[in-house]
Amino acid sequence: MYISFLSDFGLVDETVAVCKGVIYSQSPETPIIDISHMVPPFDIISGGWILAGVFPHIPPGIHLAVVDPGVGSLRAILIVETARGDVFIGPDNGLLIPALEKLGGSLKVYCVDHTWISEKHISSTFHGRDVMAPIAGFLAAGRSPSEFGHNISPENLCPYPVPCSHRSCNCIEGHVTLIDHFGTIRTNIPWESVGGSMIIPVGRENAFWDLPRVNTFSDVPPGSVSVMKDSWGYLSIAVNQGRAVDMITLNPGDTLSVKLTMK
Amino acid sequence: MYISFLSDFGLVDETVAVCKGVIYSQSPETPIIDISHMVPPFDIISGGWILAGVFPHIPPGIHLAVVDPGVGSLRAILIVETARGDVFIGPDNGLLIPALEKLGGSLKVYCVDHTWISEKHISSTFHGRDVMAPIAGFLAAGRSPSEFGHNISPENLCPYPVPCSHRSCNCIEGHVTLIDHFGTIRTNIPWESVGGSMIIPVGRENAFWDLPRVNTFSDVPPGSVSVMKDSWGYLSIAVNQGRAVDMITLNPGDTLSVKLTMK
Amino acid sequence: MYISFLSDFGLVDETVAVCKGVIYSQSPETPIIDISHMVPPFDIISGGWILAGVFPHIPPGIHLAVVDPGVGSLRAILIVETARGDVFIGPDNGLLIPALEKLGGSLKVYCVDHTWISEKHISSTFHGRDVMAPIAGFLAAGRSPSEFGHNISPENLCPYPVPCSHRSCNCIEGHVTLIDHFGTIRTNIPWESVGGSMIIPVGRENAFWDLPRVNTFSDVPPGSVSVMKDSWGYLSIAVNQGRAVDMITLNPGDTLSVKLTMK
Repeated sequence: MYISFLSDFGLVDETVAVCKGVIYSQSPETPIIDISHMVPPFDIISGGWILAGVFPHIPPGIHLAVVDPGVGSLRAILIVETARGDVFIGPDNGLLIPALEKLGGSLKVYCVDHTWISEKHISSTFHGRDVMAPIAGFLAAGRSPSEFGHNISPENLCPYPVPCSHRSCNCIEGHVTLIDHFGTIRTNIPWESVGGSMIIPVGRENAFWDLPRVNTFSDVPPGSVSVMKDSWGYLSIAVNQGRAVDMITLNPGDTLSVKLTMK
Repeated sequence: MYISFLSDFGLVDETVAVCKGVIYSQSPETPIIDISHMVPPFDIISGGWILAGVFPHIPPGIHLAVVDPGVGSLRAILIVETARGDVFIGPDNGLLIPALEKLGGSLKVYCVDHTWISEKHISSTFHGRDVMAPIAGFLAAGRSPSEFGHNISPENLCPYPVPCSHRSCNCIEGHVTLIDHFGTIRTNIPWESVGGSMIIPVGRENAFWDLPRVNTFSDVPPGSVSVMKDSWGYLSIAVNQGRAVDMITLNPGDTLSVKLTMK
Repeated sequence: MYISFLSDFGLVDETVAVCKGVIYSQSPETPIIDISHMVPPFDIISGGWILAGVFPHIPPGIHLAVVDPGVGSLRAILIVETARGDVFIGPDNGLLIPALEKLGGSLKVYCVDHTWISEKHISSTFHGRDVMAPIAGFLAAGRSPSEFGHNISPENLCPYPVPCSHRSCNCIEGHVTLIDHFGTIRTNIPWESVGGSMIIPVGRENAFWDLPRVNTFSDVPPGSVSVMKDSWGYLSIAVNQGRAVDMITLNPGDTLSVKLTMK
């Protein structure tokens, strides 16, 4: 068993290490795989998409995910089990949803309560350290999710901030989910929904760019924009050896449409 | 046993990995927990505060800390044991002091000499690789600090570059210690010294901002500045879902005062 | 045995974690040492120099190196064994060459073919995940390089993009190989070739700067430029507590000459 760890804590200060120290205190033998700690601050859309992207390539494990703009407020903390044998720990703000959907949904959901810990040990600004990392460590050491909260229905979870892509007239409408390290614009538009045309019109309302469809970055000259199936099966906008986001200004959460070609 | 590792080496080049390779050569089974390698270059104030911040959440271990603007000069290299069972390795420039104070002070201090290593294996620019990482690896493999240096008095250690906060007239005077990943301004002013008023005047000399006191970020609207007890028990200046340091220009080492309210 | 991992994947999105998940699936006990994931995007010169810099300090292991602007094109993927007992996995674009030279050259080279994997499992944009990381995991689990490709001659490998430094008239001509985290300009000019003069003229054609030769950063005042032997034995241009690259604009791949003093 291992623990994966995603957050928007960054790599400058000690917050990530503090959480790892807490985990190590409970379960020193458990390896930790960092997914990312450079999720843009408070960005649940990017964080949720990054978390989902490691599945199914990463085997079943305990997944600690903390992007938590509502820390200290009334938002719940969740423990979620999947049919595959994963256990997720994270805030109830939509962050876990894309990963859970990719893994076939939630098997059991627990809402964390504070019967297992003294309130005086919970700060109002760092529940990663005080609540979520301890639970990850305890679960890795063999304790059961039911010790830390009560069962709730999966239907009550806060949704992911952007809806699934859908067909609207002669368009597929989706959203930007992530700007990756290379500046590539990733979306939640499934590639198979886009059709077989060589030119793929991407944009919004009446402004569509006719972008060439390619298999890989180097199918166009360096500096040229194209659309392709990303490594996860979704439409992405990329530039060969360059940054698409520097040429087309789009942010996580922005709506994006693909005009379907008449056949 | 594990080794924690803090440095200002950054994550671009191979320096961190070289040190880990050296440790792995001596002690392949020992897990390494990175505290931070993004300490601002040469910044002993930030580095020392980040190092202290992992305690007591991280259990006793071997702590390698390298922020070392004086590499190759006459500054000493230290091995310091604490009552809790920690061993620190780092330069004698104040970097270790806040962590040692948090752990109740030094039990034994050794000044590293070079009887255990041939001088020709010591470069003049990378003592992390040539002196400190090897010692960390040797200690993890079971060797004793006394094999690498001679005992000195804890009183002779170079102090942390900023003094502890103190009361001066009707003010508590302290210092900025760290700008964290979220742009929050962290200080060495203990929260309990600030008193119970709802508005907390923070500033310097005759320029004080009357900042609202809150429990957590989301107690003020997004974009608003407030002061709060940080997760370590000190006063911090934060902005809900924003960067305090972009609104109030302060750097590690800057003096900061809190005006005490007359009761 | 351990696996080292270098890439230009960055630390924002999930690509590094996906590769680690793939490795973990095949070989959960094998520790992974990150060399760098912040190699400048597509920069084979910097990536190759960073990779070489960990040797010989890191012991023999499996080294996964992915800086791969040609992903999805016809460039080959290599498995290379060294006499010391290392195994490298990476694209055939020159990235592995400086490390291999440092370790005494290649013992055996294999060109990966796809007989061991179904083509439909190989994306056109992420061979790190689909081809190279799985091989690293399989090798760590005890399988043999010959299962994944066929033998080729080391002479057919794509060269490192910049040639070795060489003497030309009264100059040593070399190249910038890396701008490190501190902004120090690292080169492939061996320090011992530079001679013993106190002032070292560095530059190009008729424009040479007479730079003082020092042993360590702090031998000149803060903010001053100097040349020194870097920790790997090559000439570097550094600034005490500052960034040389902000004072002298040089990029990886740029030619640089040292004028030899007449004796």
